[in-house]
Amino acid sequence: MKKIKIGLIGWGTVGTGVVKLLRRNSALISRRLGAHLVISRIADLDIKRDRGVKVSPSILTRDPSLILNDPGIDIVIELTGDPARSGDFILQALRGGKQVVTANKALLAESGKMLFKEAEKNNRGIFFEAAVGGGIPIIKAIREGLEANKITSILGIINGTTNYILSRMTEDGISFKAALSEAQKSGYAEKDLSLDLEGIDSAHKLVLLASLAFGGWADLNKVSVEGITNISAEDIAYTAGLGFTIKLLAIGKQTGAGADLRVHPTLISHRHLLSSVNGVFNAIYLEGNYSDQQLFQGKGAGEGPTASAVAADLIEAGENVLSGDYLVPGKISVEKDLKLAPKGEIECRHYIRIPAVDQPGVLARIANILGAGNISIASVIQSGRRKRGIVPVILMTHKSREEAMEKALKRISQLAEVKSPPLRIRVED
Amino acid sequence: MKKIKIGLIGWGTVGTGVVKLLRRNSALISRRLGAHLVISRIADLDIKRDRGVKVSPSILTRDPSLILNDPGIDIVIELTGDPARSGDFILQALRGGKQVVTANKALLAESGKMLFKEAEKNNRGIFFEAAVGGGIPIIKAIREGLEANKITSILGIINGTTNYILSRMTEDGISFKAALSEAQKSGYAEKDLSLDLEGIDSAHKLVLLASLAFGGWADLNKVSVEGITNISAEDIAYTAGLGFTIKLLAIGKQTGAGADLRVHPTLISHRHLLSSVNGVFNAIYLEGNYSDQQLFQGKGAGEGPTASAVAADLIEAGENVLSGDYLVPGKISVEKDLKLAPKGEIECRHYIRIPAVDQPGVLARIANILGAGNISIASVIQSGRRKRGIVPVILMTHKSREEAMEKALKRISQLAEVKSPPLRIRVED
Repeated sequence: MKKIKIGLIGWGTVGTGVVKLLRRNSALISRRLGAHLVISRIADLDIKRDRGVKVSPSILTRDPSLILNDPGIDIVIELTGDPARSGDFILQALRGGKQVVTANKALLAESGKMLFKEAEKNNRGIFFEAAVGGGIPIIKAIREGLEANKITSILGIINGTTNYILSRMTEDGISFKAALSEAQKSGYAEKDLSLDLEGIDSAHKLVLLASLAFGGWADLNKVSVEGITNISAEDIAYTAGLGFTIKLLAIGKQTGAGADLRVHPTLISHRHLLSSVNGVFNAIYLEGNYSDQQLFQGKGAGEGPTASAVAADLIEAGENVLSGDYLVPGKISVEKDLKLAPKGEIECRHYIRIPAVDQPGVLARIANILGAGNISIASVIQSGRRKRGIVPVILMTHKSREEAMEKALKRISQLAEVKSPPLRIRVED
Repeated sequence: MKKIKIGLIGWGTVGTGVVKLLRRNSALISRRLGAHLVISRIADLDIKRDRGVKVSPSILTRDPSLILNDPGIDIVIELTGDPARSGDFILQALRGGKQVVTANKALLAESGKMLFKEAEKNNRGIFFEAAVGGGIPIIKAIREGLEANKITSILGIINGTTNYILSRMTEDGISFKAALSEAQKSGYAEKDLSLDLEGIDSAHKLVLLASLAFGGWADLNKVSVEGITNISAEDIAYTAGLGFTIKLLAIGKQTGAGADLRVHPTLISHRHLLSSVNGVFNAIYLEGNYSDQQLFQGKGAGEGPTASAVAADLIEAGENVLSGDYLVPGKISVEKDLKLAPKGEIECRHYIRIPAVDQPGVLARIANILGAGNISIASVIQSGRRKRGIVPVILMTHKSREEAMEKALKRISQLAEVKSPPLRIRVED
């Protein structure tokens, strides 16, 4: 049986999982692929640490060029997560005629257009199943399983850390801070926590999903991004009473005016398929013009699930090597940019919490501002008085335009009685 | 751009959906495939009925041989569901060098071994994404997305009719009969209702999933099958109080002793990922040795979703036609039979409802029988007295062996006080 040689650059958690998987499931993979996948070299800055898996010292190196310049290596797995060097590794691999498998969502979201073009120029593929949703084969599903559909809507819970935090706050009423500290201990969090908490990691993944599903490259800089750091246990309790769960959603929708791409905390009904996706689970909800509603749920991170995704890519990349046909079906669109919808036009219902001094007339002033913006109030919840005199005014609005809402929120935050910026959470209906 | 000619045999609901989809999404499909998919002939016994889609009368025929013998046709879609003739259509198509796309789960479950062998002999593929889970790309997910895994467990809600009935009974407390009558009106039910209600349709689909995931052909005749006709509103209410939902599950598990394949009503915890899969939704829950827990949920039937699955297969079959390489990745195993675990060895907890005459000593006699079989009782719920004097004795057991449970149930049903056979529902922990 033919051997396909693989070079691994970046030997962290996922890389270790891949080494273990290729060993443990090797018989099964060889049978399915019709060839052996062999890791012939591993490059990492740290080649001393014990990863719990035995590897011949002769294949370890600190020098990635020993992989990139080895003509015997057919596939390069790039798992460094190094923002400065990973792009170069991928470019060099492609130019050397190698297939590339990566989980580097930040790099692909930022520089994917250039990288995928370079792949095409070199007639090689960049495979990135592991970049979105961990072990969930969502890239495959969009690329092939649902490819006969015009996908109209993507709603993703695609960051495990924030979903863990919101789930813990919801299920046990603990504070954001306490839940965050638990999440950090779990080991799933990104090194740079702000990528998780501020929604940036979700935005990276959304760029990949939308570019794949909507047939044009989505510009990361044009995705509206808002994280979960302002969500309080209070917001969760109030909205739960109204039948909602708060989730950090990555949203991609095809509208008549173009694609609407956003990441923000979102209220979804308790009856929505995504509302029961808790803890470190990830899920992607898709609507297609024929496939209708679909939900793909699984572990969004961790050694095993992410290694499963990398290995599926390795098998597909290996099939290309065997057949000599490097055409990737349903490949991502980089030739043209995805047309985006004007932000201000988007309409949805809103939950608004306004921290205001408890004085007569506050609610009237707020209501006036909203009314002037043509935003009608569906319900008002004002909780009891507090010692400090700050009482949150809590409102649910009917559908209102984004532009009007932003103006109104700005005006409300300028009221003398309003001591800190109002929080609004959009409702996904 | 090259044209790939398709012949459609069987122009019912799904066939109509496929014709509509290929028309409406044609630009998108041609762009993704790099060729046009053209339905060049449609064969059906009824070519008069208005299907709500315009088709040139010149392509309609009552004679499938005009498709099967047309050397210009590359792909045959078999959607007749005709048990007597569909197998022949597929064989003829394969022998004529055509790719086959079908949704005929009954045929594949019964004769798949022969048909897939014939496909291999002719170097062509049988694609069957639409045979399981409607629009859910679960076949693709197992074949490719998760192919680096040893899949250890499959739990499927893969029959929409029975899930609709159980969901309605659970959510609104209506009777089996009332829910059944609603389901029939919805139009999702199989022509032969017993295929749905007795679990046979689920067993057909389980055979396909298990044969694909477990690396050997699963014999339909060796799947234990039990339907939902004995489930009462009472069972649903009692078990809900204990934290369970009743679902008709298709279960496939790899055990040390072989594969365990069953279809039966099953109690799952309210916290299980499958418990919130309601109505006509289908879902397949998988565990892989690296991918961990995954859930794939979507519409399991209907014109649109099933057409989406057929069309994805058409694109893949079309890629083969274009490349001339007919190797199907991750193809189903027919060379060897799947080794099955002995039925009697399986262990699980049970819910048992025994319709008994309300006389002193009944519970003691039942408990004695269970004790003799080494089955220990976890809890007993005996509801209030009834006018007729028949009171259900309701028990939850601890884990017990299947063989012991079957013997005990037989002995219990022979008790003088027990007027009709006991109902037991297995717990999936």
